[in-house]
This record gives sequence, structure tokens and C-alpha cells, in this order.
Amino acid sequence: MPNEMAFQDHYEEKYAHCFGCGRLNESGLKIKSYWDGEESVCRFTPAAYYTGGFPENLYGGLIASIIDCHAAGTASAANARETGIDLATRGPNRFVTASLRVDFLKPTPMGVELEVRARVREMAGRRVWLDVTLGPGAEVTARGEVLMVQIPER
Amino acid sequence: MPNEMAFQDHYEEKYAHCFGCGRLNESGLKIKSYWDGEESVCRFTPAAYYTGGFPENLYGGLIASIIDCHAAGTASAANARETGIDLATRGPNRFVTASLRVDFLKPTPMGVELEVRARVREMAGRRVWLDVTLGPGAEVTARGEVLMVQIPER
Repeated sequence: MPNEMAFQDHYEEKYAHCFGCGRLNESGLKIKSYWDGEESVCRFTPAAYYTGGFPENLYGGLIASIIDCHAAGTASAANARETGIDLATRGPNRFVTASLRVDFLKPTPMGVELEVRARVREMAGRRVWLDVTLGPGAEVTARGEVLMVQIPER
Repeated sequence: MPNEMAFQDHYEEKYAHCFGCGRLNESGLKIKSYWDGEESVCRFTPAAYYTGGFPENLYGGLIASIIDCHAAGTASAANARETGIDLATRGPNRFVTASLRVDFLKPTPMGVELEVRARVREMAGRRVWLDVTLGPGAEVTARGEVLMVQIPER
């Protein structure tokens, strides 16, 4: 997907400062999310210092962070698709996390590219519920459930 | 508590590499947790680049990370207290996260010291359930529920 713009690249400037996914946060992770059919996908290889208690396993807080940002981007993109927003002419509505749950099923290894996939379970008004999986390639080592809420326009 | 050792300072070397709380992770956050009666407390001021989607609010992924590490440390310390481990002679048992849930009640501001408090709800065998609050001073802006599991000895 090298020539495709990521969900996060469409965010308006005022919403693009997130440590996890903001293109304007110079110190941040800058994760990028794309549609892959009905699912969204993000591929990300964490830096070597994001270890957990064991040096060979990835830090759970980073897993939660990536799941969170990928879900926020997916909610934004799903909302744009649902409401017919043309992302060539304006930014998508921005969503923030109301509730995040992550189940750590097994250790996630270091030094490999992670594949993060999200699927919208339900949309109702300003709220979007999503199911997320994360792991090396097709293997799932962590599972997330996220409730995103659309930011009121200002 | 300047002269008191933090929970994380007692971790054995092999368990002290966590990005969030490992004293041996040079790039990490190095959060520190202490007893305060029946609760544990951690005070932490995030760096300026840990912004959320809005520049004036703290990144949710960092909130989840701090809650996670503070809960892991508290589970470790509570287990040591419960089982009579003398931390002057050996490290505590180490716990990892099985499940983490964070509810974001309102935005958490940037540039202020956060107070994170945890309380053990239940302990059963190798498992410890904890309730955590986080916010600027006494105000609570996020709430966590965490299930920690003791790592098998190797």
C-alpha cells in the first residue's frame, strides 16, 4: 500500500499530534492504518527498547497503545465511509477512546513486524465498537476490544 | 518517599527490562511505585511529547502503560507481603498482565504530575485482580481494572 494515504494522513492538523499515530508528533510512533476489505490493517515493527519485563518479549503498554491508535483510525475511516465524507476534500471526524480492553494471550516477540487488524463490530450515533487482533504475522498474541467516541466539532 | 526503595527496584535483574518500569531499560519511563497504607501510589510527570490527538491532552496509550506497570508492581509487592518474602534477601515474584481494561473518563491534562493509585481487589493462587485510578492529583481522569498473573519460576 505504498502509494495509498493512511487513515492518519487524512486527520486535520489540530488532531494530528498523537504520540501513537500523529504525523505531526516528531517523537511519536507514527503508526499507519489502511483498509484491507472489511478489516483495517496496520503493520509496525517496534523499536528495540520497547521490551517488557523479559528482554525477549514486547512491552504490554506498547501493545495497548498500538491497538488503541489503530482502533481510533479505523473508527474515523469507518465513519467517513458510512457518512459519505470525501477525504479528498476534508478530514474525517476524529474519535477518542472511551474504553480499551486488551487480553494478552501469549508473549509477543521482539524484532518482528506486527500485524494489527481491526473490524467494526457496531456503530451507533457517535460511538463505534471495534475488535482488534495483534501479533507477528497471522499469529494472534493479543486481542483488543475498544469503544471509540466521536469528538464533538468545535 | 525519597529514601524508600520502590517495588520495581527490588525486581531481579532478569525481570528489570520493562520499558515502563524496568530500572535497566535506559530508554524507558522508569516509573516507581510505593505502598501508601493499603493502596500503592506512583507519581509520574510524562514528557511533553506524550500528547494525544489534541496537543493539550495526554496520550491514552501512555495512560494505559502507566496503569499496567503500576498494577504489575503492586501485584508483586502484595504477593511478597502476603507470602512473607523478605525483599532484603531476594526479589519478589514477578507478575505479567493477562488482561487490562482502561476507561477514559475525561481528558488528562499535559504538564502536570499524575497520581496513580492501585488497590488489590482479590488474590487467588497466581492471580491478582487490581483496581487502579489515574489523574492529576486527587482528580480521577482514568480508571483501570487489571488481572495480573505470576510468572512461573524458571
